[in-house]
Amino acid sequence: MNVFNLRVGILKLTSKIKLIGFDLDDCLFDSTGLSERARLKGIDAMLNLGLKVERNKAIEMIKEIVKEYGSNSSKHYNFFIKRLNQLESEIELSFNEQYKYIAAAVMAYHEEKIKSIQLFDDVEPTLIKIKDLNIKTAIITDGIPIKQYEKILRLGLDKYIDLVVISDEIGVKKPNPRLFDYCLKKFGLNGQEMVYIGDRIDKDIIPALLNNIYSVFIHRGGKYDTYKTGNKIPKETKPDYEITSLSEVLEIIEEINSE
Amino acid sequence: MNVFNLRVGILKLTSKIKLIGFDLDDCLFDSTGLSERARLKGIDAMLNLGLKVERNKAIEMIKEIVKEYGSNSSKHYNFFIKRLNQLESEIELSFNEQYKYIAAAVMAYHEEKIKSIQLFDDVEPTLIKIKDLNIKTAIITDGIPIKQYEKILRLGLDKYIDLVVISDEIGVKKPNPRLFDYCLKKFGLNGQEMVYIGDRIDKDIIPALLNNIYSVFIHRGGKYDTYKTGNKIPKETKPDYEITSLSEVLEIIEEINSE
Repeated sequence: MNVFNLRVGILKLTSKIKLIGFDLDDCLFDSTGLSERARLKGIDAMLNLGLKVERNKAIEMIKEIVKEYGSNSSKHYNFFIKRLNQLESEIELSFNEQYKYIAAAVMAYHEEKIKSIQLFDDVEPTLIKIKDLNIKTAIITDGIPIKQYEKILRLGLDKYIDLVVISDEIGVKKPNPRLFDYCLKKFGLNGQEMVYIGDRIDKDIIPALLNNIYSVFIHRGGKYDTYKTGNKIPKETKPDYEITSLSEVLEIIEEINSE
Repeated sequence: MNVFNLRVGILKLTSKIKLIGFDLDDCLFDSTGLSERARLKGIDAMLNLGLKVERNKAIEMIKEIVKEYGSNSSKHYNFFIKRLNQLESEIELSFNEQYKYIAAAVMAYHEEKIKSIQLFDDVEPTLIKIKDLNIKTAIITDGIPIKQYEKILRLGLDKYIDLVVISDEIGVKKPNPRLFDYCLKKFGLNGQEMVYIGDRIDKDIIPALLNNIYSVFIHRGGKYDTYKTGNKIPKETKPDYEITSLSEVLEIIEEINSE
């Protein structure tokens, strides 16, 4: 047994941390960036099909709509076309044209989402090392189960993750701490044996803290990243750790183990 | 001007038929076949992911579900997995496994639908000839506008069709004859100046007959094809013509013109 294996062996026996939980979107893959790129592909598909609107103006419009209706609405392009038709006096689209443009945009959007989804570079190496340490893994995420599982399968995460907890599956939504408690119970662990990593203070850090789980805020440049929003993290919801690369979680485990 | 061009020239001037209407699914492309192939791809995706069920049994189950819930339900695989889990005593899937299989099936289903959609071989040549004759074209179809337009764009039909009428767009559904009347009015025509081609007696032939439109039943081997169902066409709803290839519509126009 060489030194490396010896060390892994010791960690396996002594690690206080038995489980690492991850948020999915903007933690394991660039969800915000992917959606933004896909939305632009949708705009470009409409322009290529002959829609008469200035590209920059169209981009501003779709951003506004995403802000107003939320990023999970399935009707962004419907609202886009409706706005264009009602608010812009020089544009008058028939019903047919409206549906044609919306269909083209939705097709291009989904094509991009399927084609370009990929893990952050640091995810796979880190998950392999975590497996080597004999530490279990879970994804705890909000969202429509079938959509979230589609992402997990497309990202090839299935083989690395021991348990997936999707809030709509058990009828409890983040930041309800019972979602995290459910996950702990599944493995028969207490909070101090788990680390949870996410990109949102409200939905990831707070429920972890409430379950006495080691909380890690990851800065990925997504829409809730405090480095980007400029929001200060209130003292009472401060995560135990802040990181910018997932690989740093290995050091955190070492630190906790040596406490 | 050669003989062919001369003939086209005369037709342009004298054609009684000014408009040809088409149904979309199972008239211009093999909708039934495509859905069946896609459904099998979904089944195979679940089996490849490790679902323990005999393939032939799975195929029979999904067929049963499609029959019971209709071919347009978006929940076929949900029902499939639920049935498997509740009815088969040897199978017990966790929530996670259920969603994983459903997601995998839906992904494979859509991939096949996008990849394999194509016009019947006789459609493009016939549409080109119709355009040469200076006859207008319309698609009149039931269905969700954005889904139907997606098919039209993927099939490359957009450049050949002058008007698309999708029932949910104007709030009138087949077999309501007003859908066909709406189309006639759009072109300022009466029924005897139009031919309509579809694969269903109830939804295509009857409303055409009620509008005094020349009705053509096309046998494409889809789920409503009377050659396949064995159903007899009642005398009072007999279409004016029955064809097996779309190109035959050109002969029909010649026949009507020479009446």
